[in-house]
Amino acid sequence: MKNSFGNSITVTLFGESHGVAIGAVVDGFAPGIEVDEAFLAAQMQRRKGLSEISTKRRETDEVKILSGVFGGKTTGTPITFFIENAAQKSADYGDLHATPRPSHADYSAYCKYHGFEDYRGGGHFSGRLTAPLVAAGALALSALEKKGILIGTHILECATLRDKGFGDYAQDIAFLKQADMPVLKPEAREQMLQVIAKAREVGDSVGGILETAVIGMPAGVGEPFFDSLESALSHAMFSIPAVKGVEFGLGFEIAKHLGSKVNDPFDMQGEKVVTTTNYNGGINGGISNGMPILFRTAVKPTPSIFKEQQTVNLKTRQKATIKIKGRHDPAIVHRARVVQDSLTALVLCDMLALRYGTDYLA
Amino acid sequence: MKNSFGNSITVTLFGESHGVAIGAVVDGFAPGIEVDEAFLAAQMQRRKGLSEISTKRRETDEVKILSGVFGGKTTGTPITFFIENAAQKSADYGDLHATPRPSHADYSAYCKYHGFEDYRGGGHFSGRLTAPLVAAGALALSALEKKGILIGTHILECATLRDKGFGDYAQDIAFLKQADMPVLKPEAREQMLQVIAKAREVGDSVGGILETAVIGMPAGVGEPFFDSLESALSHAMFSIPAVKGVEFGLGFEIAKHLGSKVNDPFDMQGEKVVTTTNYNGGINGGISNGMPILFRTAVKPTPSIFKEQQTVNLKTRQKATIKIKGRHDPAIVHRARVVQDSLTALVLCDMLALRYGTDYLA
Amino acid sequence: MKNSFGNSITVTLFGESHGVAIGAVVDGFAPGIEVDEAFLAAQMQRRKGLSEISTKRRETDEVKILSGVFGGKTTGTPITFFIENAAQKSADYGDLHATPRPSHADYSAYCKYHGFEDYRGGGHFSGRLTAPLVAAGALALSALEKKGILIGTHILECATLRDKGFGDYAQDIAFLKQADMPVLKPEAREQMLQVIAKAREVGDSVGGILETAVIGMPAGVGEPFFDSLESALSHAMFSIPAVKGVEFGLGFEIAKHLGSKVNDPFDMQGEKVVTTTNYNGGINGGISNGMPILFRTAVKPTPSIFKEQQTVNLKTRQKATIKIKGRHDPAIVHRARVVQDSLTALVLCDMLALRYGTDYLA
Amino acid sequence: MKNSFGNSITVTLFGESHGVAIGAVVDGFAPGIEVDEAFLAAQMQRRKGLSEISTKRRETDEVKILSGVFGGKTTGTPITFFIENAAQKSADYGDLHATPRPSHADYSAYCKYHGFEDYRGGGHFSGRLTAPLVAAGALALSALEKKGILIGTHILECATLRDKGFGDYAQDIAFLKQADMPVLKPEAREQMLQVIAKAREVGDSVGGILETAVIGMPAGVGEPFFDSLESALSHAMFSIPAVKGVEFGLGFEIAKHLGSKVNDPFDMQGEKVVTTTNYNGGINGGISNGMPILFRTAVKPTPSIFKEQQTVNLKTRQKATIKIKGRHDPAIVHRARVVQDSLTALVLCDMLALRYGTDYLA
Repeated sequence: MKNSFGNSITVTLFGESHGVAIGAVVDGFAPGIEVDEAFLAAQMQRRKGLSEISTKRRETDEVKILSGVFGGKTTGTPITFFIENAAQKSADYGDLHATPRPSHADYSAYCKYHGFEDYRGGGHFSGRLTAPLVAAGALALSALEKKGILIGTHILECATLRDKGFGDYAQDIAFLKQADMPVLKPEAREQMLQVIAKAREVGDSVGGILETAVIGMPAGVGEPFFDSLESALSHAMFSIPAVKGVEFGLGFEIAKHLGSKVNDPFDMQGEKVVTTTNYNGGINGGISNGMPILFRTAVKPTPSIFKEQQTVNLKTRQKATIKIKGRHDPAIVHRARVVQDSLTALVLCDMLALRYGTDYLA
Repeated sequence: MKNSFGNSITVTLFGESHGVAIGAVVDGFAPGIEVDEAFLAAQMQRRKGLSEISTKRRETDEVKILSGVFGGKTTGTPITFFIENAAQKSADYGDLHATPRPSHADYSAYCKYHGFEDYRGGGHFSGRLTAPLVAAGALALSALEKKGILIGTHILECATLRDKGFGDYAQDIAFLKQADMPVLKPEAREQMLQVIAKAREVGDSVGGILETAVIGMPAGVGEPFFDSLESALSHAMFSIPAVKGVEFGLGFEIAKHLGSKVNDPFDMQGEKVVTTTNYNGGINGGISNGMPILFRTAVKPTPSIFKEQQTVNLKTRQKATIKIKGRHDPAIVHRARVVQDSLTALVLCDMLALRYGTDYLA
Repeated sequence: MKNSFGNSITVTLFGESHGVAIGAVVDGFAPGIEVDEAFLAAQMQRRKGLSEISTKRRETDEVKILSGVFGGKTTGTPITFFIENAAQKSADYGDLHATPRPSHADYSAYCKYHGFEDYRGGGHFSGRLTAPLVAAGALALSALEKKGILIGTHILECATLRDKGFGDYAQDIAFLKQADMPVLKPEAREQMLQVIAKAREVGDSVGGILETAVIGMPAGVGEPFFDSLESALSHAMFSIPAVKGVEFGLGFEIAKHLGSKVNDPFDMQGEKVVTTTNYNGGINGGISNGMPILFRTAVKPTPSIFKEQQTVNLKTRQKATIKIKGRHDPAIVHRARVVQDSLTALVLCDMLALRYGTDYLA
Repeated sequence: MKNSFGNSITVTLFGESHGVAIGAVVDGFAPGIEVDEAFLAAQMQRRKGLSEISTKRRETDEVKILSGVFGGKTTGTPITFFIENAAQKSADYGDLHATPRPSHADYSAYCKYHGFEDYRGGGHFSGRLTAPLVAAGALALSALEKKGILIGTHILECATLRDKGFGDYAQDIAFLKQADMPVLKPEAREQMLQVIAKAREVGDSVGGILETAVIGMPAGVGEPFFDSLESALSHAMFSIPAVKGVEFGLGFEIAKHLGSKVNDPFDMQGEKVVTTTNYNGGINGGISNGMPILFRTAVKPTPSIFKEQQTVNLKTRQKATIKIKGRHDPAIVHRARVVQDSLTALVLCDMLALRYGTDYLA
């Protein structure tokens, strides 16, 4: 499959940036889960990002639920999240089809779809497609929260700036949930806003690293050999446009150390088995071990910049230059974190439902 | 699914380290592909690693093909690779069930399987399970090579030592194919062997970073939104025991740069569209763009070390110590590279067969 | 999965009878296929059935395509067919939740969804859900027709009346395509209309047997052992509400005969291998053999009848009676044939795309 | 997928009639299920059929379990059932490749696999491939029995002879479990054995109809819209070689009746909701309703007969005749019933595990 993922709970995504609508169908959610519309709306708002550093495209992004919810609760049949495209300005994109934007999907999509793809605004490859995933994720996050499973993501790095890591997980996750800019160190917030603003001024863009923590996950969840928790989560993360790396626990850093330094010793904490360190990010052998799950993604700088760039003309087969117009974000890390939370929640709901049955989340 | 992956071509893995046998069933391969038994045997040998730095467990690892091959060629029906477990010494592992080894799957598997898991030698979680994947991968690598698609992996880092990156891809891949130690810089070979030998001496272990290149991949392959090439490849890579990170192109490094520095400009090379840099690792929007596919994995130091470690006793629910005995590798990067090549090949075969039909590889 | 089917091409269905909308997302169709809107509209009309014997619920059933089509052609990304529910009269169904209708999904859905299901008008189990499948099927039928693969379904039996079987397949299929009542024997048409009208008069319902023929199918398609053509087609057919039997070729009748009577001898017809009889319905070993594919489904009489029926009250746990109100068909065979054609086309498109690649249908 | 089926529990089948071995990998079974080796052996014996009317090919069919069982109990990791092919006499089949046997898979497989298929003895399409399914099914049947879910199949029809239908389900299923010939009416047993013996004498074959009942199934299981219980069961049944029809409850007969005659009225039986008739075979809307699940399959006469038959020579492209030699059954219904029980059990285990979690069967 391509635009669907999941086993027990599946998500199917549809739409293009400048088509009629975008949406997602979520199938397999337990019946009887309350839909928290206020939280859903708040998540959609968070995805839009801080107005001072985000795109000027002002979609209302009003989510309609077309099916699968009755009397405010899930029915157990497919839930369809639907968002109309109101503000598309297709004229801005007309000439991009012949001259693909560097580091966008334009050229590779052209090769795959033979030129029939809806190229306007990136079409099916637009970051806009993450909006219905956030809507679907809001439901998943709510359901997990009722089970005591909490998820939070912060910007660990933005360009060359660095936030501090997680301290008290529960407290930090609660803080991030309501933060307009997901940064744990107060001074990092200002610095990052400045570096983003500066990139915008010069028509450039910056990337960053997002770090996600999950607490309250029961031990024993994951489906190795091939559906390890790492495999399932990275699969979802790499579908977020712009993500070029995923690492768990110490990640790439772990490769530099001796086994004796980075093995996580076991200990008892009352009746609970814990590890005294968590270099493996809460996962051993692809299965949760009850410690916080910790992972990071590398988000490349948004490829839509306003500087003149070199490209080719696919019709004339000649070198060409391109200058992108329209409305584009100088950074997306602060917006992508909501997508990361959402996909994490959907993957974990699927894994939990597969393990404990489809009624588990009810 | 769990022990199967793939859409058009599927791989199903079975077995435990100290059970009767391990194996893999590969379904969906085109009929008429010649089975290169010499190459298969050579790959199995490469997976064993250099004798001076590898485990003393000397399995013959003789691969029998039980089905799906007739007259030396694939039939189109499931191919079963089968390896008997000859050399198991189960007595070495008997006491591990109560006292899980730090950073192994012992404890998380215990939580998932309620103690019914075959714990001997890591059971289903043993690195030994990668042997049938290498056998299956040999077939995939051969089939891809006939299509001009070549794959090679080297040890970019081992502990704190560093190899040089890929230069001339075709030449480097050819070199790696026959190298006993997959390192591109001659002096790095000796240094790495020394650091591994030293870790062994002190009963410790080291990790590393593996870098894989794929050349000859046609543009237009990948199944976004959710089965992006990155998603499919990382999914497979994170099933390799010990992998804790996967990154494409510049990877985590890309997050530090401005968009204008790391966008890959397009250019014409004769009739072919190319990019002048390849910071995206040959993939845009989850689809191959015709440039070399480049990615790296972080391999943690093998958790089996011979130093005394802290753990708990799951029966008494008390703190305990453990000293692992038996035969264990002080490093697996030089062996894991064959697994990485193999899984890469299997994923790409699946993607190509899905795109171009099941007869494509014939 | 549940509300999705298919491997290379997948169909995801959503919606409830009295919800906001119903629809289907079709993923994996080749780019560049022309969307024949007139044919799509005609198929939707055919699904409504002859007005004199069909439900008085007059939905406009206007299909909007929300995504995946650009400039009148498929883009290769998910195609969403969307139908708003305009005419629902929920008041008619309010009391059914406590007193399940005999032979409907009411009670079994209640057990599965714990009472949270949208019970109005059958909810997700309504025959209305077949409307988006017909829309999706129209695209599949058009694409297959361009490949010379033609599909037609007639009412072989209605109650105790019988149509004649297929004669000249191409001619019969062409006739059925434009027939308002899909019957091959002229006099059977009138008789069947009468038996249906009579059932309506007395508040009862009739069932029937639908027979489908596919011609032009290449030999060698099907994915046994488990995805035989029969398995794939029956899987889809049994998802049509009211279907209780599926048989291929001679079907159940074949069990009464000697092997020597019902084996299909091979013969040459010019350069083509054919069979002189077709008791196996064009499928041997789960794979097409190039002869017409022939199968029949048993469609039970619609359970919605207007006579008083015995049921139970799920709240009081007592025996109860029910008298169904509202708008219901005395027969659905003449409407279901369009659904049968549509699902057949979708299954074959999937099988062909898996075999010959995703561009095959372009 | 092709040689795998299932969602939460998957079965992967491999092997050819005259290859090294055949087998099945079952993944997803709960840990801690006892393996009843005596029952497994008994089922394998039942599959061989009564010696007086079955093939003279006397395979020992000894099942080895290669993985997934430890200390007599399932571990939760893949279970591999393995059967060596000992008695193959390939010389008997050598000339069949050019002259396909009527109504066998020979020709359609040739089209699919381009002549690379292992044609000896039917290769992957041999009825022999059902042996590992029976081994896997034995485990499933045992696990279901512990949950109070019982399955039994009898020969409802053999050629033109007819057994009586199920009476007291529990009693009949217990009787069938130990019957050497699965017939409920004593006199039907002798008659059927005679009709089969007579077919053998004249080198011909007979078919039949198998009827399966499942009792103890909880209400609320099934995954419509597309994975209805009927869809899932028929999908599996149509993978049994020779099955050409599947019907539930009244099946094709239901199409002849008025709704008022075949709707199943609800009633209370103590605290339990029941239906007073069971024309729908225990399934409404694709979901179990708590009544016995009842279905029938049409098994065609075995195509291997000893009379001269017309075929074509695929090399010369001319008409030809063929006279099949070797060891073949004049009937397989009495053997296929074990396969039908086994696949039914595997499908239900999968559905139950998906619904109630992977530990449900433990």
